[in-house]
Amino acid sequence: MSDAQTVDTDGLLNSQFVVEMVRQMRAIDSYGSYDKLSTVEILEPFILTPEKKRDIPIIGDPDELVMARIRVFYNALSAMIEAECGLTAVPLVNLTHEGFGRVLITVGKLVVMDRTLRDVHRFGFPSISKMKDEGDKILSVALELIGNYSKVAGL
Amino acid sequence: MSDAQTVDTDGLLNSQFVVEMVRQMRAIDSYGSYDKLSTVEILEPFILTPEKKRDIPIIGDPDELVMARIRVFYNALSAMIEAECGLTAVPLVNLTHEGFGRVLITVGKLVVMDRTLRDVHRFGFPSISKMKDEGDKILSVALELIGNYSKVAGL
Repeated sequence: MSDAQTVDTDGLLNSQFVVEMVRQMRAIDSYGSYDKLSTVEILEPFILTPEKKRDIPIIGDPDELVMARIRVFYNALSAMIEAECGLTAVPLVNLTHEGFGRVLITVGKLVVMDRTLRDVHRFGFPSISKMKDEGDKILSVALELIGNYSKVAGL
Repeated sequence: MSDAQTVDTDGLLNSQFVVEMVRQMRAIDSYGSYDKLSTVEILEPFILTPEKKRDIPIIGDPDELVMARIRVFYNALSAMIEAECGLTAVPLVNLTHEGFGRVLITVGKLVVMDRTLRDVHRFGFPSISKMKDEGDKILSVALELIGNYSKVAGL
């Protein structure tokens, strides 16, 4: 990575979302194989450039690693929601082995995120910055819902 | 089945919950093998008398049939919630192959039922009547929640 890029992405790599993503990735790294990797290297599997995406077949079954990455992404979001609102956020990732499914995050009795996933063997983002944008979007919708329906979230 | 029993259970077997359970069981019966079975026979797999339960090992992996039955039970509940409140109720059964997991039913952004399941290879009820009681209990809690937080349920 060139110095210019490092400067560009410094704020991004220290953002709460990226830090949480790295923490979640380390959490599933039982053998310490990420110990010496940088943030960019640890998050590399999440980045699917158009070229990389083109190489993945349209139809395919997701492997355990992809499933684990999807969990990491939604766990990180749940951890951030929890940090922001002080209430437990529980992610629920329900995928078939064919890579279709539904992801929920609940806070109390409130569904703060609800998505249908498909083609998860192609799960990824064009860049770390795009991934953070996506995370921030979900987070802000979730926090707004919690703010509006705090009683249900507190149930 | 003796006549005395038939009279006893007539109201039960025509109750909305039991009718819905039978409908859901028939829905997964692709080969029409239940076509000639009575209600009691169709629901027989859900009934685990203490004797039958004793014969199932404490630890075991649930097979596809048990998983399907669990889905039937929560689908039937969702259908009933939907019939009562007029809003779509979506069940989400998330089980590991080891038989642990979580079941949710959501209406809009409201979680109207949320249960942790374990040992699902032993899923069953002592009798049809007990199964209906359990269903009615979940249903009444769900409908009360929807009544109290109708705005969230309508989201």
